[in-house]
Amino acid sequence: MKAKRAKLFPTPDDASTAFYDAFESADLPAMMAVWAESDSVVCIHPRGPRLVGFDAVRDSWAQIFAAGGRLRVATTDVCTFEGPSIAVQTVVEMVSAQGSQESPTPVCATNVFELTEGGWRLVIHHASPMMVPEAAEPEDEEPAKAHVLH
Amino acid sequence: MKAKRAKLFPTPDDASTAFYDAFESADLPAMMAVWAESDSVVCIHPRGPRLVGFDAVRDSWAQIFAAGGRLRVATTDVCTFEGPSIAVQTVVEMVSAQGSQESPTPVCATNVFELTEGGWRLVIHHASPMMVPEAAEPEDEEPAKAHVLH
Repeated sequence: MKAKRAKLFPTPDDASTAFYDAFESADLPAMMAVWAESDSVVCIHPRGPRLVGFDAVRDSWAQIFAAGGRLRVATTDVCTFEGPSIAVQTVVEMVSAQGSQESPTPVCATNVFELTEGGWRLVIHHASPMMVPEAAEPEDEEPAKAHVLH
Repeated sequence: MKAKRAKLFPTPDDASTAFYDAFESADLPAMMAVWAESDSVVCIHPRGPRLVGFDAVRDSWAQIFAAGGRLRVATTDVCTFEGPSIAVQTVVEMVSAQGSQESPTPVCATNVFELTEGGWRLVIHHASPMMVPEAAEPEDEEPAKAHVLH
């Protein structure tokens, strides 16, 4: 099944906005219209496996949306690196259940967009839980934790 | 303190190779020669905070290298997206202690390189622990886990 290709995204920002709109509205066709239809797109959900290829990525979003529970995703701390055919944004996603009063969960995301014949499309979404240093914890201890895996 | 700028990296692959060589040899000047000297570079170590800016990134690598314990980092499953001024590679890093017989720990990494006046430089390194599906676990359950944070 191919996603609807009605929309073109003339800039990376347009594609990014469409991505987060589709995310919040749990709209699978709109979500997949943002992704490049390629076997080499990569999507890593927080604590999830590394998914490669349009079909695997679509299946993951289908299951996330089918699980219900609409989310609010506010992006902040955006850094962008833009070229003529590749653009990258790193953001902090503040994720919360819509209507919830709880503090949002911060997620680090790196989004990569490519200029295709169909306009700018998402080719990588890499999201991981963000470690927020506790006030009482000396910053010096953070790299030691990072060192466990790195 | 500025890092040594002796080396130029004519391609993104050259910069990537230098990054992983510096990582394995715990060579801070070589590591920081790969990074763009910019306030907007971003580095996320596995389970670590989001570090922004050359100085914060340098400090993190200094502390990681000072902690000792040389690592072996083999990269696999590389997907690349290259433009004339921005290039992105996503890889799986198989990380282990040098000399250790234990199984390596898989880490998902997204590396973004920018063509600067000083050749290709690293501007984003986003690494996160890779979830490896267990053989006995149905794949259908993975997105439910991802949904916890996404």
